Amino acid sequence: MFDYQKNRLRRAFTDSLPLPEHLDSHLKQALTRVLTNHGSLIRPEIVMDLALGYELPLGVATDLAVGLEYFHTASLLFDDLPSMDDAVERRGTPCVHVEFGDSGAILSALALINRAYFLIWRAAAQCSPANQPVALAYLEHHLGVGGLLHGQSMDLHYESLPRGRETAEQIAIGKTVSLMRLTLVLPAILGGASAQELHLLNRIALFWGLSYQIADDLKDVLQNSTESGKTSSRDYSLGRPNIALILGVDGAVQRLQRFIAMGDTMVRKLVTLQPNLRFLEAIRADLGKELIILTQSACTETVGASS
Amino acid sequence: MFDYQKNRLRRAFTDSLPLPEHLDSHLKQALTRVLTNHGSLIRPEIVMDLALGYELPLGVATDLAVGLEYFHTASLLFDDLPSMDDAVERRGTPCVHVEFGDSGAILSALALINRAYFLIWRAAAQCSPANQPVALAYLEHHLGVGGLLHGQSMDLHYESLPRGRETAEQIAIGKTVSLMRLTLVLPAILGGASAQELHLLNRIALFWGLSYQIADDLKDVLQNSTESGKTSSRDYSLGRPNIALILGVDGAVQRLQRFIAMGDTMVRKLVTLQPNLRFLEAIRADLGKELIILTQSACTETVGASS
Repeated sequence: MFDYQKNRLRRAFTDSLPLPEHLDSHLKQALTRVLTNHGSLIRPEIVMDLALGYELPLGVATDLAVGLEYFHTASLLFDDLPSMDDAVERRGTPCVHVEFGDSGAILSALALINRAYFLIWRAAAQCSPANQPVALAYLEHHLGVGGLLHGQSMDLHYESLPRGRETAEQIAIGKTVSLMRLTLVLPAILGGASAQELHLLNRIALFWGLSYQIADDLKDVLQNSTESGKTSSRDYSLGRPNIALILGVDGAVQRLQRFIAMGDTMVRKLVTLQPNLRFLEAIRADLGKELIILTQSACTETVGASS
Repeated sequence: MFDYQKNRLRRAFTDSLPLPEHLDSHLKQALTRVLTNHGSLIRPEIVMDLALGYELPLGVATDLAVGLEYFHTASLLFDDLPSMDDAVERRGTPCVHVEFGDSGAILSALALINRAYFLIWRAAAQCSPANQPVALAYLEHHLGVGGLLHGQSMDLHYESLPRGRETAEQIAIGKTVSLMRLTLVLPAILGGASAQELHLLNRIALFWGLSYQIADDLKDVLQNSTESGKTSSRDYSLGRPNIALILGVDGAVQRLQRFIAMGDTMVRKLVTLQPNLRFLEAIRADLGKELIILTQSACTETVGASS
């Protein structure tokens, strides 16, 4: 993505939820914090590239990208609450609920969500009428009890579920893959992608979502390891689902490689059908670099552990 | 409203958020509790009568009514949380967060919200295209930082605001009036009401919303009074905004009567323009009965206090 596009995205993230002058000062401060402290914005970049790849107008692409990123941001605000993951820090600063109370975090998240539905509806309204109901039903399904909320509820009650790879991957499909599907599939639906293209994008979202989750799980285990080779991961101490704890580091790396390879097959087929989506190969390349780093750490880890 | 319509509404409230079979059992139990334990459904009855008064199809009227009631229900789940009003009971049973934890209440509320946006979007999509963007912008404004969330944030930080009638009424306008506006105005926008009708409905929502709030405040003060005439209201002990505590019982009754009279003027004008909305007079009559009971309690109270 070009720099001017990234700058446009940064501005749009901050400006797409205008705060009224008379807004209660507590909520205003919390929301200002949230709106000026965005993450890497990789997800909304993909949304924009996809939407533009399907020749949707720039305004539509921006509304979709920011709307989905608002949903993602709101999910982080809820995730971090004491009644959920009980986190205290996010993106190097104190969590919103630490600074503004649980109620400040909840009201900020609801403000993002309310605006997100509006932005996405506004974007959809400018697309082909036939695609609108499909797109909005897709959104409802993957954000709601069919996707994200189901995954989050399983995640919170992991200890009462049968432990193992299958449960951990079901949770990842609910949480990580749902948002990945919205990122990759929603703009394509509105852009009039063919059934086959949508099928391939849905598969890529599944493989990439699971890959990202395993990479995260590996990082949790590897970056927290002590020199003794004994894992001291945060997920382990909190009893959270983690594929690298379940399969071991080697098993998790193998599974990650397998998902990436399956994704590659889908990307190749998709780019043949729709050459405008060639940028997906660059995103895949970034994932590959991360994989190399992880594999190296894993080797060092294994060597360290056996020495 | 006829009984068969009320039954239809009860069923629709329970059935409009289908729960997938595989849904995590914790979330499923919490949501089943919420969906089978609705309130009086007076608000969605008004939505239905208005939508049908403007000759919208029955399916559209039902989606609007249930969608708005889901928003209302979600707002109660959030309000009751320990970090907000810290309530333990609602509608004669333990609050959802008491039974299913804060996270269970939050995820249930988000499921209702996600479905509500979809139902309302689905209803809007069947109405005149010109009215759709107006309706969805109206929804976004009154649910978001321009309405409900602003009111809730002020309510939570009442102790840091200048106390008095003006602040208490600003909070009521944010919380109670915003939902009343959606109830009265949203179906009318989608039904193609004229600018003058919308103006009158907005005014009725303002006066009725404030009336309901004052009636609630009076109940809090009167029903908790001891024989000594000394108020022992819940709002007083929690330091919550309450018009009857600020103006005294007599002052609050007078203000309530004034708002009802102002509402009456608007209802008369509106029914002349749009005779289909004559049912609003019956709703006003119910409010009147409540007022008589409250005024009688207030008199007894005053006599009791001075004796």
